[in-house]
Amino acid sequence: MREQNPIKGFSRLSRDEKVKWLAEYLSDGDLAAFLESFRMPDENGQNKFESFSENTLSNYHLPWGLVPNVMINGTLFHVPVVIEESSVVAAASKAASFWAQRGGFQTLHISTRKKGQLHFTYSGNGNTLKERWIEIESEIRKGVSHLTQNMEKRGGGITRTDLKQIPGLPGNYYQLDLEAETMDSMGANFINSLLEEMGRLLPGLIHEKVGEGHVEIIMAILSNYTPDSLVKMKVETPLNQLTWAKDMDPEKFASRMQWAADIAWHDTGRAVTHNKGIYNGVDAVVLATGNDFRAVEAAGHAYASRDGHYRALSRVDIQDNIFSLTLEIPLALGTVGGLTKLHPLAAKTLEILGGPDAKTLMKIAAAVGLANNFAAMASLVTTGIQQGHMKMHLQNILNSLNVKPEHHRAVEEYFKDKTVSVSAVREFISKLN
Amino acid sequence: MREQNPIKGFSRLSRDEKVKWLAEYLSDGDLAAFLESFRMPDENGQNKFESFSENTLSNYHLPWGLVPNVMINGTLFHVPVVIEESSVVAAASKAASFWAQRGGFQTLHISTRKKGQLHFTYSGNGNTLKERWIEIESEIRKGVSHLTQNMEKRGGGITRTDLKQIPGLPGNYYQLDLEAETMDSMGANFINSLLEEMGRLLPGLIHEKVGEGHVEIIMAILSNYTPDSLVKMKVETPLNQLTWAKDMDPEKFASRMQWAADIAWHDTGRAVTHNKGIYNGVDAVVLATGNDFRAVEAAGHAYASRDGHYRALSRVDIQDNIFSLTLEIPLALGTVGGLTKLHPLAAKTLEILGGPDAKTLMKIAAAVGLANNFAAMASLVTTGIQQGHMKMHLQNILNSLNVKPEHHRAVEEYFKDKTVSVSAVREFISKLN
Repeated sequence: MREQNPIKGFSRLSRDEKVKWLAEYLSDGDLAAFLESFRMPDENGQNKFESFSENTLSNYHLPWGLVPNVMINGTLFHVPVVIEESSVVAAASKAASFWAQRGGFQTLHISTRKKGQLHFTYSGNGNTLKERWIEIESEIRKGVSHLTQNMEKRGGGITRTDLKQIPGLPGNYYQLDLEAETMDSMGANFINSLLEEMGRLLPGLIHEKVGEGHVEIIMAILSNYTPDSLVKMKVETPLNQLTWAKDMDPEKFASRMQWAADIAWHDTGRAVTHNKGIYNGVDAVVLATGNDFRAVEAAGHAYASRDGHYRALSRVDIQDNIFSLTLEIPLALGTVGGLTKLHPLAAKTLEILGGPDAKTLMKIAAAVGLANNFAAMASLVTTGIQQGHMKMHLQNILNSLNVKPEHHRAVEEYFKDKTVSVSAVREFISKLN
Repeated sequence: MREQNPIKGFSRLSRDEKVKWLAEYLSDGDLAAFLESFRMPDENGQNKFESFSENTLSNYHLPWGLVPNVMINGTLFHVPVVIEESSVVAAASKAASFWAQRGGFQTLHISTRKKGQLHFTYSGNGNTLKERWIEIESEIRKGVSHLTQNMEKRGGGITRTDLKQIPGLPGNYYQLDLEAETMDSMGANFINSLLEEMGRLLPGLIHEKVGEGHVEIIMAILSNYTPDSLVKMKVETPLNQLTWAKDMDPEKFASRMQWAADIAWHDTGRAVTHNKGIYNGVDAVVLATGNDFRAVEAAGHAYASRDGHYRALSRVDIQDNIFSLTLEIPLALGTVGGLTKLHPLAAKTLEILGGPDAKTLMKIAAAVGLANNFAAMASLVTTGIQQGHMKMHLQNILNSLNVKPEHHRAVEEYFKDKTVSVSAVREFISKLN
C-alpha cells in the first residue's frame, strides 16, 4: 500500500525535486534516469517543452511522420502528422496518392468566423432591453475598439453581436452572442478579451439606456462550437476510374462505399466510428501544427448532431456515373498564436506546408481527414479492417510471447487467412516446438 | 514554387532516405540534424516509437507531467498526464487537492460493455429471418467460441447479439448488433475478429435456417459509441465548506456554478466548450496511458447529444445545503493491449497509477476530467478565464517582442488589471524606452 497522505506544495518544487519525490513514492531508484532519457540533452531546448504546461517531468514522444502527395485545389502538399495509431499514416498516404491522380481534393466552401458568449441576467424590463439593443450594441462595440483595431487591420474584427435568450433557462437570462472574424489566429484570446471587456461595460450601458434593475455578469468566454468556421471538401471521379479495390470492379466497390456512408448517416452507432476515422487524420494534422484537438473534436461531433440525430460528417454520392465523397467539418485552427510557433516541430510542420494561412491549414486538415475516411471505408467494404490491423497485432503477439525469430515466418504464413488471437498463436507455436 | 510532382514509393524508403528527400524538397541542409535532435540517442529506444506508425521521421514531444492528490473512493492517486495546453495541469491539481479534503471523487456507476456491428443485406424473407434469429444466434455464438474462450476465462465474452433494422435504411438492410464484455482491454481486436468471423458464418446459417435469398456482408466493425461503457462520478460538499473563491461567499459561488452548469445544459454553444474543458483532463490521462483519444472524444460528444440536443456531460445540483457536481461520461479504455505496454512512458504511467484495471483507469480519467470541469467553471464565474491565460499570454508577448528582461516587471505590474494585447504591450514598451 502506497502513501495515502496528499502531498502539499508539489507545484512549487523544482523539476528535480518533483522527480525525486516521485521516485521515493514509487521506491524506484531508476526513475530519474528513465525520465531523463526522454528529455532533450540541451537545457534550453528542454525548457521550451516544459513551459507549455505545469508539473512537467519528461517528454511524451509521439511519432511525427509524413503523408506525402496531398493534392488540394491543384497544389501539392506533403503533410507532417502526429499520430500514435498504426495504419493511419499508411491509409492516408495511399488514399492521398490515389486521389492526387484523380484531380485531388476540391474545396467547395470555407469560412472562418468564430463565436463567443457573454452570459448575464437582468432583473429590469426585458422588452426595453431588446428594443434598445441596437444602441447598446453600437456603444459596446465602440467601447472595445481599442481591442479590435489590430484585428481590423488584418481584415478581421467583430461581425455580429446579437442578444439572445435560450429556451429552458429563466426569463431573466440573456446572452450576448458575439461573432468575429479572427483571420489566421484561432481567436481564443481575442474573443475572450473582447467578451470580458464587454462584461465590464455592459452593466453601465444597460442602466444608462434601459433603466434600473440589477445586471449580473455570469461568465464570458469563447464558444468552441464553430459551425461557421467550416470546410466543405470533396473528391470525385468517373466510376470507371474508381479502381481502388484489386478484387472488386469499380461499380461494385462504389455501391458498397455508398452503403457504408448511408449506414453511417442513419445509424449513430456506426456514425461515431465513421467520424472517429475522419478525426484520425484531422487530429494528426492538428497535433502536428500545435493546434488544440479537444476544441476541434468537440466542435465537430456537436456539429454531427446538429439536426437532432448524430450522423456521419461525410457522404457518398453516385450520379451520372460520377462517384463523389464529400466532407463537411467545422475546424477552428490557427497558424499564428498558441503553440504554432513555440513548439519547434509545429513550426517546422508549418514551414513544410509552405507557411499556410488558417484557411489553407483548414483545407489540409480536412483533406487528410477525408483521405483517412475514404481509406477506412474502402478497407471495411473490401478486405475488412482486421487484415491490416492483424498483421500488426500478430507482430505484437509474437513479441509478447517471445516467439523465436526463426518461427515468425511459419506463424505469419499460417495466420494469413485465419483469425489471430493470443491463444491461437500460442497453440500453433506449441506444435512447432 | 516547390516541386509539384507527386513522389512515388516514399513509404519504401528508409528513414534516412525519407529525411534526405524532405531536406532536398525544402532545400534545408539542417533538416536531418534538426529532426535527429528530437530522437532518442539509442537506436533500440527510438525504433520503438517509430514502429507505432508509418513514415516516422522524428518524435513530437508533449509535456508529461503530474496531477497529484486525486482521491477516488478513498484511494489517493498521483496521475501522470500528457497535455500541451497551459493551465490544464495547474487547474486539475488545484481542484483535485480541494476535493481530496472534501471526500474526494465518488463513483456512482461504472460499466464496461462495448459494441460492434455486422452490417448485411438479405433479399429473402425478413419475417422468417427475425423468427429464426434465436436459432441463428445460438449457432453463430457456437461458431466463434474458439475466439471467445480466452476472454471468457478472464470473465468477459459476448453478452448480447441482437438483430436490428435502422429507420431510413432500405428494408433489406440488417444489423447484427453485438455487445461484449472485454474486461481490461479496450476490445477493438476482440470485437473486430468476432464480427469478421461471424460475417463468414452468417450467410451459410441464414441459408440453412431461413432459406434462399442473397446474403451480402457489407462490413463488420466495432462501434466506438459506448453508452454502456460508462462512468458516473461526483463530488459533493456542504455549502459552507465550498470555500473555493477568495472574494465570494460559498453560497454565491455555488449559485453562480449552478448557472454555469445550467447554461451548458440548455445551450449547445456553451455545452461544447464546457465539455471541451472536461476532455482537457480526460484526454491528458488517455494520452498518458497509450489509449486512443479520438475514440473517447467521439463516444463522449455523441453521448452528449443522445436526447437530440447536444448538452453538458456534467450537472450541478444544490439541495439541502449540499453542493454536488456530477459527471456522466462514456469511456472505453484499456490497460492491456494497444500501446499501453509498448510506449515506455505509458507503461510507466500505468505503474505510477498502481497497475490499474480498466475500471480503475476509467475512474481516474473521469476524475481528472471532473477536476478540470470544476476548475474551469469556477474560474469563469469568479475571476474570468483570461486572468490566468493572460499571465501566460503576456509572457509569450514579452518573448515574441524581445522585451528587455529589466522591463518585464513593469509590464507585468501595469497589465495586472488591464486587457493584454500585442498592440497595448507594444505601446506601453515604447513609452518605457
